[in-house]
Amino acid sequence: MNTTSFPQNAWYAAAWDHEIKHEISKRTLCNKELVLYRRTDGDVVALEDACWHRLLPLSMGKLNGDNLVCGYHGLEFDGNGRCVYMPSQETVNPSACVRSFPAVERHRLVWVWPGNPALADPDLIPDFHWNDDPAWAGEGGTFYSLKCNYQLVIDNLMDLTHETYVHAGSIGHEAITRVPFEVGHTDREVTITRWMKDIDAPPFWARQLGREGLVDRWHIIHFQAPSTVAGDVGVAVAGTGAPEGDRSQGVSGFFLAAITPETESSCHYFWNFVRDHHLDDQRWTTELHLAHVNDGNGVYEQDVDVLEAQQKAIERHARTPFYNLNIDAAALWARRLIERMVDAEREEQPAVEEKPVRLVSRS
Amino acid sequence: MNTTSFPQNAWYAAAWDHEIKHEISKRTLCNKELVLYRRTDGDVVALEDACWHRLLPLSMGKLNGDNLVCGYHGLEFDGNGRCVYMPSQETVNPSACVRSFPAVERHRLVWVWPGNPALADPDLIPDFHWNDDPAWAGEGGTFYSLKCNYQLVIDNLMDLTHETYVHAGSIGHEAITRVPFEVGHTDREVTITRWMKDIDAPPFWARQLGREGLVDRWHIIHFQAPSTVAGDVGVAVAGTGAPEGDRSQGVSGFFLAAITPETESSCHYFWNFVRDHHLDDQRWTTELHLAHVNDGNGVYEQDVDVLEAQQKAIERHARTPFYNLNIDAAALWARRLIERMVDAEREEQPAVEEKPVRLVSRS
Amino acid sequence: MNTTSFPQNAWYAAAWDHEIKHEISKRTLCNKELVLYRRTDGDVVALEDACWHRLLPLSMGKLNGDNLVCGYHGLEFDGNGRCVYMPSQETVNPSACVRSFPAVERHRLVWVWPGNPALADPDLIPDFHWNDDPAWAGEGGTFYSLKCNYQLVIDNLMDLTHETYVHAGSIGHEAITRVPFEVGHTDREVTITRWMKDIDAPPFWARQLGREGLVDRWHIIHFQAPSTVAGDVGVAVAGTGAPEGDRSQGVSGFFLAAITPETESSCHYFWNFVRDHHLDDQRWTTELHLAHVNDGNGVYEQDVDVLEAQQKAIERHARTPFYNLNIDAAALWARRLIERMVDAEREEQPAVEEKPVRLVSRS
Repeated sequence: MNTTSFPQNAWYAAAWDHEIKHEISKRTLCNKELVLYRRTDGDVVALEDACWHRLLPLSMGKLNGDNLVCGYHGLEFDGNGRCVYMPSQETVNPSACVRSFPAVERHRLVWVWPGNPALADPDLIPDFHWNDDPAWAGEGGTFYSLKCNYQLVIDNLMDLTHETYVHAGSIGHEAITRVPFEVGHTDREVTITRWMKDIDAPPFWARQLGREGLVDRWHIIHFQAPSTVAGDVGVAVAGTGAPEGDRSQGVSGFFLAAITPETESSCHYFWNFVRDHHLDDQRWTTELHLAHVNDGNGVYEQDVDVLEAQQKAIERHARTPFYNLNIDAAALWARRLIERMVDAEREEQPAVEEKPVRLVSRS
Repeated sequence: MNTTSFPQNAWYAAAWDHEIKHEISKRTLCNKELVLYRRTDGDVVALEDACWHRLLPLSMGKLNGDNLVCGYHGLEFDGNGRCVYMPSQETVNPSACVRSFPAVERHRLVWVWPGNPALADPDLIPDFHWNDDPAWAGEGGTFYSLKCNYQLVIDNLMDLTHETYVHAGSIGHEAITRVPFEVGHTDREVTITRWMKDIDAPPFWARQLGREGLVDRWHIIHFQAPSTVAGDVGVAVAGTGAPEGDRSQGVSGFFLAAITPETESSCHYFWNFVRDHHLDDQRWTTELHLAHVNDGNGVYEQDVDVLEAQQKAIERHARTPFYNLNIDAAALWARRLIERMVDAEREEQPAVEEKPVRLVSRS
Repeated sequence: MNTTSFPQNAWYAAAWDHEIKHEISKRTLCNKELVLYRRTDGDVVALEDACWHRLLPLSMGKLNGDNLVCGYHGLEFDGNGRCVYMPSQETVNPSACVRSFPAVERHRLVWVWPGNPALADPDLIPDFHWNDDPAWAGEGGTFYSLKCNYQLVIDNLMDLTHETYVHAGSIGHEAITRVPFEVGHTDREVTITRWMKDIDAPPFWARQLGREGLVDRWHIIHFQAPSTVAGDVGVAVAGTGAPEGDRSQGVSGFFLAAITPETESSCHYFWNFVRDHHLDDQRWTTELHLAHVNDGNGVYEQDVDVLEAQQKAIERHARTPFYNLNIDAAALWARRLIERMVDAEREEQPAVEEKPVRLVSRS
């Protein structure tokens, strides 16, 4: 029975593509410990990081060609998790295997499906094309093992009111708390749209626009269940038609967030921020990266401080309900869509009580 | 239901008065996390340290005049805990508030009442007048988050036999273990009296008395439930009438201890030691402070080593009963008075099972 | 009821003889915290490390002759655990005592019996005579608080197939995984025998034999329940009759392992490796010691890395069964013998629910 806050039947970002080489790496995703490596043909292998025999992490072993050899007794597994060698035995137990997980590279990320492999349709991978679209440029990063439930990050991104308080001085602006917003949703997506017209551009955007003065600013944030957010954000010179679709007098960015549950109380947060201007200028790439992550002073690091404190507070107040404000509308819809996915899995999977098995039976 | 070892309806020392300024501070008291600050009119505010909205500690926010602003979404609370601002809303939910706790300054300490505010009668604040009585001088300190249940500190102070073993060389004297003692009690107080006549003064007291030779020494220790101890201690030249009330040939001190539960297994120990001699001589103040706390060599630091080790032992031996000696009579009465307070609260407060509330309901 | 993985009625190595002096030391063994010291007559005392009165560890006290004095209130206990002094009392409660454990020195180790003292027959102490037999020389060591269940160490020693993978380059040899082996057992012992004939000597043995070339190598490993292993290992020039009993053209060693449960998830591993050659040459003693423990590069340290990782994996996969290979035959018999001992104790000892006792009763 799924008693977690995240569905199992979904694609989750497990790593950046450049992280996975023809060598052993490991990562925990949805409470599952994985060993990851790239085969010589370039495909990514994701196996359960525990030997079939005595549970030693296979990540302590070594590669033998495209196979993985356990560091304790030498059992060898192929990229599908099937055991192909056992020491001191002529035959290999045909049921001996470790679990293998579907893994697909797309848009610079490696996506892994922790649930039922038969349902792992690559068409369900979230659209993160901005990550490798030549019309956009940027360089993101990752917060590994961020100490909060992944939904707190989604809450954070689906209501940018907090910019005014958490990010005053860079992207914050009190207009965010004043203007109306619209929330829409489908079965898998939620969108919140906020237009702030005729406002002073906050420093982050004034710098990109290259001029002072009044702007029309937009936040158009798309959530795709269960754990990705793509935010269309930017400013244009006020009154030049951006709300109606003409962004020619403006600059745009997308923030791309893949938030992968590690455990119930931690997650990996793969982020990027891409821009549509100065595409070939590495100085802009560096400057915008540092706006987000910069030795504790970046806006995402400010969020991390809040998110981790919030997680601790939730754990201490286990029985306290949250109360909601109007601004939580989009976050609540995101939670509702996730909850539907989790509930659907709960109903499909009857509760099977796994029994602990003693290592030897009575003789 | 009160399942803790401490009553909620009591005044507990939360801080020294000089610790609380017109800025945010925080402290945990009786398992409750508090944010503390002084208003511009000088009064002390004690609020629950968790925003009504999403539980972020309010101590991560900032003051706006006498109000407290949450650092995540900007909700603003007045000194009574009432929410007076919500972002993106014209009206404020009238039920939105955080819990406010009665707080009173007296005798150099800030006392907080974690229980039912309607019962918070300032007349119940323990008498610690020696802390700011010009007839007495001294400078104490605090052990924050001392890693033991607060009752272990009370046990320690209500039987000074341990001085012989824990504090040999300063205040210890084997006479303590020999002479008889008397224990009296009321519904709220316990007193243990021990007179050691015609003994050599231990070094700590010989130094204060300013002479060698035989003394009559006294320990008259008052406990007031649930968590304060005031000890009248001193020596006089032997045979000059101190037991009968004439202390003119002696020196007196009071140790003042307010032991505030932080959690079941930790406490804050606010202590002072005041003297009735050399009132204006800072060197004596410093010397007597250092006798108690001095880089690990003070007598209170010796106690802390024992108390924290005892707490760990109790946790490891959860089911082992304590056995009692004659010397435990006063400590046992103190425990009994506390237990009556806790039991009375347990009976008054019917067990209400708080249910965890999901953040969103099923749509 | 015994719910642990180890029997209580057994001799366990608690310390090397040279570790116990006429001063206080402490160690946890089978979940029992002990204070250990040597009396002036040379006998070793093993007492429960918690004062009868208020549970302070007696190891924080001091010796008074052959008695142990508590560091809090001065209660004094003799070497049998009987309280012989209480402060401020003329009479000592005759039931006041701390538990005393049978302790015997043999073969350079101090063995303690944590179970029923009436069953503590010294004849049951495992035969470790090689430790102080002048026909053998070597110097071992201890891994204190090794972070794994003690049975994992036994598993490790009862199947040396892992040498090929964990100790490649020193004692590993792929022949180990190829040759057949025999397993025998009695009610208390398991033996696994493996002969590897006509193989290249691995470096560790070639160096001891003093020549290159083909050898006959043997592993004859004896387990004695519940927690000791003595391994007869060595090589002889191939074809000179070692399998038939003539080791005159070879060198022999014994590894001696006493693995004492500290808790369910940790153990103390007392080890030695002794040789039958170059008995008086300290350089050989040092060299063979360093082969086993050498700043992280010794073969036993390689085992420790695996064992601790395996323990963590088992804890994370609490409900995952182990699967077995042919090579596990001896380890499984060892586990079966241990399990019989534990089960026998479980049946003998009816479950007694110890109740927590409040420090004071209601008045």
